[in-house]
Amino acid sequence: MTARGKDSIVLLIHCKDRKGIVARVSGFIHDFGGNILDSDHHTDEETNDFLMRMEFATEGFQIPPGDISAAFAPIAKVYEMHYDVSPSNRRTRVGMLVSKQDHCLADLLQRHRRDELHIDIPIIISNHDTCASWAELFKIPFAVYPVTKETKPQQEKQVLALLKEHQVELVVMARYMQILSADFLGQVACPVINIHHSFLPAFIGANPYRQAYDRGVKIIGATAHYATQDLDEGPIIEQDVIRVGHRDTVEDLVRKGRDLEEVVLARAVRRHVERRILVYGRKTVVFD
Amino acid sequence: MTARGKDSIVLLIHCKDRKGIVARVSGFIHDFGGNILDSDHHTDEETNDFLMRMEFATEGFQIPPGDISAAFAPIAKVYEMHYDVSPSNRRTRVGMLVSKQDHCLADLLQRHRRDELHIDIPIIISNHDTCASWAELFKIPFAVYPVTKETKPQQEKQVLALLKEHQVELVVMARYMQILSADFLGQVACPVINIHHSFLPAFIGANPYRQAYDRGVKIIGATAHYATQDLDEGPIIEQDVIRVGHRDTVEDLVRKGRDLEEVVLARAVRRHVERRILVYGRKTVVFD
Amino acid sequence: MTARGKDSIVLLIHCKDRKGIVARVSGFIHDFGGNILDSDHHTDEETNDFLMRMEFATEGFQIPPGDISAAFAPIAKVYEMHYDVSPSNRRTRVGMLVSKQDHCLADLLQRHRRDELHIDIPIIISNHDTCASWAELFKIPFAVYPVTKETKPQQEKQVLALLKEHQVELVVMARYMQILSADFLGQVACPVINIHHSFLPAFIGANPYRQAYDRGVKIIGATAHYATQDLDEGPIIEQDVIRVGHRDTVEDLVRKGRDLEEVVLARAVRRHVERRILVYGRKTVVFD
Amino acid sequence: MTARGKDSIVLLIHCKDRKGIVARVSGFIHDFGGNILDSDHHTDEETNDFLMRMEFATEGFQIPPGDISAAFAPIAKVYEMHYDVSPSNRRTRVGMLVSKQDHCLADLLQRHRRDELHIDIPIIISNHDTCASWAELFKIPFAVYPVTKETKPQQEKQVLALLKEHQVELVVMARYMQILSADFLGQVACPVINIHHSFLPAFIGANPYRQAYDRGVKIIGATAHYATQDLDEGPIIEQDVIRVGHRDTVEDLVRKGRDLEEVVLARAVRRHVERRILVYGRKTVVFD
Repeated sequence: MTARGKDSIVLLIHCKDRKGIVARVSGFIHDFGGNILDSDHHTDEETNDFLMRMEFATEGFQIPPGDISAAFAPIAKVYEMHYDVSPSNRRTRVGMLVSKQDHCLADLLQRHRRDELHIDIPIIISNHDTCASWAELFKIPFAVYPVTKETKPQQEKQVLALLKEHQVELVVMARYMQILSADFLGQVACPVINIHHSFLPAFIGANPYRQAYDRGVKIIGATAHYATQDLDEGPIIEQDVIRVGHRDTVEDLVRKGRDLEEVVLARAVRRHVERRILVYGRKTVVFD
Repeated sequence: MTARGKDSIVLLIHCKDRKGIVARVSGFIHDFGGNILDSDHHTDEETNDFLMRMEFATEGFQIPPGDISAAFAPIAKVYEMHYDVSPSNRRTRVGMLVSKQDHCLADLLQRHRRDELHIDIPIIISNHDTCASWAELFKIPFAVYPVTKETKPQQEKQVLALLKEHQVELVVMARYMQILSADFLGQVACPVINIHHSFLPAFIGANPYRQAYDRGVKIIGATAHYATQDLDEGPIIEQDVIRVGHRDTVEDLVRKGRDLEEVVLARAVRRHVERRILVYGRKTVVFD
Repeated sequence: MTARGKDSIVLLIHCKDRKGIVARVSGFIHDFGGNILDSDHHTDEETNDFLMRMEFATEGFQIPPGDISAAFAPIAKVYEMHYDVSPSNRRTRVGMLVSKQDHCLADLLQRHRRDELHIDIPIIISNHDTCASWAELFKIPFAVYPVTKETKPQQEKQVLALLKEHQVELVVMARYMQILSADFLGQVACPVINIHHSFLPAFIGANPYRQAYDRGVKIIGATAHYATQDLDEGPIIEQDVIRVGHRDTVEDLVRKGRDLEEVVLARAVRRHVERRILVYGRKTVVFD
Repeated sequence: MTARGKDSIVLLIHCKDRKGIVARVSGFIHDFGGNILDSDHHTDEETNDFLMRMEFATEGFQIPPGDISAAFAPIAKVYEMHYDVSPSNRRTRVGMLVSKQDHCLADLLQRHRRDELHIDIPIIISNHDTCASWAELFKIPFAVYPVTKETKPQQEKQVLALLKEHQVELVVMARYMQILSADFLGQVACPVINIHHSFLPAFIGANPYRQAYDRGVKIIGATAHYATQDLDEGPIIEQDVIRVGHRDTVEDLVRKGRDLEEVVLARAVRRHVERRILVYGRKTVVFD
């Protein structure tokens, strides 16, 4: 998808639409000797939001990567932009949260191992010890913090502390079967991606496969979204589906769903770390 | 899908599971010289429902088609079966209900014209006159009964009378934008298939495409189901989906959705008239 | 997908990649008061081709639509660009070629009728009179030129003359079951879109559904592509697929395929007339 | 999909169609006290092949599982049936062949670990040592037999001997990048499932992703099939596809393809070991 092989810089911009933004931004890049490798932008005509992703070659660009953000600040100020500048070869530090089920974790670890995703995984945290062997296999620190209704506030503090200690920039809930509190989400200070095992907004909450079975749907799905304080209501990043039939039991739905959950979560993480996603309102723009 | 070219009889059976049903039924067919062309059955292990579809050649069967149902009755009694016997070449009489949008109607009429569906369409009824030209083109009687909140009970009586007059065996709501009352559904005395323009149970009710747009889903769907007194809650027959992206406006969703609605409704009608569907509880078994 | 509601100009550019193209083009638009509504570009790193689509508001742009192409020429010269400037509200004149099967024609006509596609259809040409009723219904001139091996060169001349007379800008082969000669394609002077009833490059040539049935594939497809002198080898615009099973006969494949052919062809035509496609080598870039 | 929870017997039958087969077979099961849990049959009207899968409860059946095949033989003789009787809880012994790429192997091993597939894996054989760590992790014997053009006949003998030693009943080529010789396939005496990384019959042979990229297709696929002496021509078991776009490089196709290959191969293995597949001619019937 990206300009692999060449080092590049990704510039993400979000502001209200006004005339001349593309010209101004591409002019900035050109003026300092940059070559734009890929650009894509979208304007939401209902809300007048302007959202853009631009990727340009590091080679030949006269501003060192570390200084680009500061150099761009005056333009951002004019247009009141939110923006982010990241070298595309920078690896995102991902903290994994898991419970008993290991399939999403194992899948992400293998993608990581074959370097499919541009991430480092400094820590895996669980409320059970079931997944310890995966952590061991991939030589990643693994911490177990059991949780009960009573100990939840305290457990969340421990989790937060550990994520901070490992300088985590993205939290991935790989079938972590706990609801993160508003407090946790307020303090974590980095995005959290969750995989919900249904085609949201259908079957919010517990046991979505059972719900889907009882409703007699002909297709099931999985949804990756940013976690927000409203359960299963965060901005959707990616969804996918698979057909089911009357011969499929709830267990078959669970089995088919696992395959979905793995690929949907992996695509969401991939897009996030490649800086392909902008959130606005409760929606995402995903630049493919 | 079916034994085209040969005349055949379709036998649909629903009862509680007991030993020997398949042997008993296939024995009945064999004893009278029948050749089974296709058989499929499903047992729901949770509810112990036994559901079967058997299709056998008319040729060589020693009981005339019109007498088979009576001949089979003693077996049905032993197992307390609900059952249905239909020659597969019998055309189902379909009454169409439409409003202003014509795409599902036009699609079904064209399938009908190339004899893709084994149906006759004796009547099209609408609460608007928008679709009159289609009826004219295909030389099908077209009745307009406008409806308001006040006149609804009376209008439904007129619609019912007309459906009865035309001996309709299946009502298809081809984007009929009225909710049929419990009274209507209680009196219509034949199945009613509706197409809902969302991936149920997501986005029940009005303006599902707008709802989907606002929620920022990455996939939209359409759902064909039997109409019951609980709005959008009837047994699902068929669903299908298509990807949408941030560049798609609500109008784009509506446009993409039209293609879905057409094929999903057509598949549902096809399966119904080929006697491939059994309803049990709020679910369907669809024998492909 | 596009900036509906607002008048806009679409600029398509193809050249070899060099530094500064995006800046130069967006600068041009900005300098004359334009507001970019949508921009997307792609650089093929293997071939160094630069391909871009930019859409900007007509309102406020200081150059009248008819003069933009000339005004842009000097920039195009510097970068040796192929480029095209089109108002997005300009309707493309489409000439339809059909044979006996009417489903793709009927589908396009209905989309046209509800103004889903930004086209005019001045003429439908066929080698059979089967589709005459559709032409009549939609009040479009219909010409029948039967063709045999012997009369083919002459028939093609007649078809060419009629297309020219109607100032056709795009020819759509809506299941036209004749192979257009190299001569024809050389002289037609506008793009030709064909729908092939298989998932190309599988099942090139005649009877692809029969071929697919005999091979026992589990999925069938349809492919819309630009017609070139190499049969079924032209640049692919769009493809889609559907599952088939062992119960499906060749006739079932044909029936399922019809639904595919309709939507795949319609999507291809839509993207072409919205100026979303650039051809380079034997490939297309489709800006969604 | 199957009657999980209950022990059951699967009976697969293939013969030429004649009257009374279903009655005779279901009668046999009923006469000995069996309860049919699931039955499905298909008659190919072109070839007159009759293909059936019946699953009945072990509980209550008066013939011990080991004697059923012999007891059924007289009926099979009358109808000249090929048939197979297997307890559904019998685990199939699977020998894995791999080369350098580990994703299909790792995927199957994890499904095996969570007991998703009813298999034992007594041996993994490779022509490289790359996958040794997976074998070690899952504690499965791993044999490396490097192969060159010259040593191929000898290497195949070693592989064959090892498969025989481990009493392998199914060989799975999990991206084994060697073509098995006709000799090997003649002597292996059990089915061999291969995963081809294209949507067959498109892109037969080497580097299918490169071929797909160069052709500019909009969808790529993967195909699981039984290996026969004609390369990539064996009976297809399962296929699936995913969309690709102009931004996808060959490497992106390879990456997206991996996800397809894993699920397509896993589905094929699952259906094989659940005795859901019958091969006839160069086609399969897959009873879902």
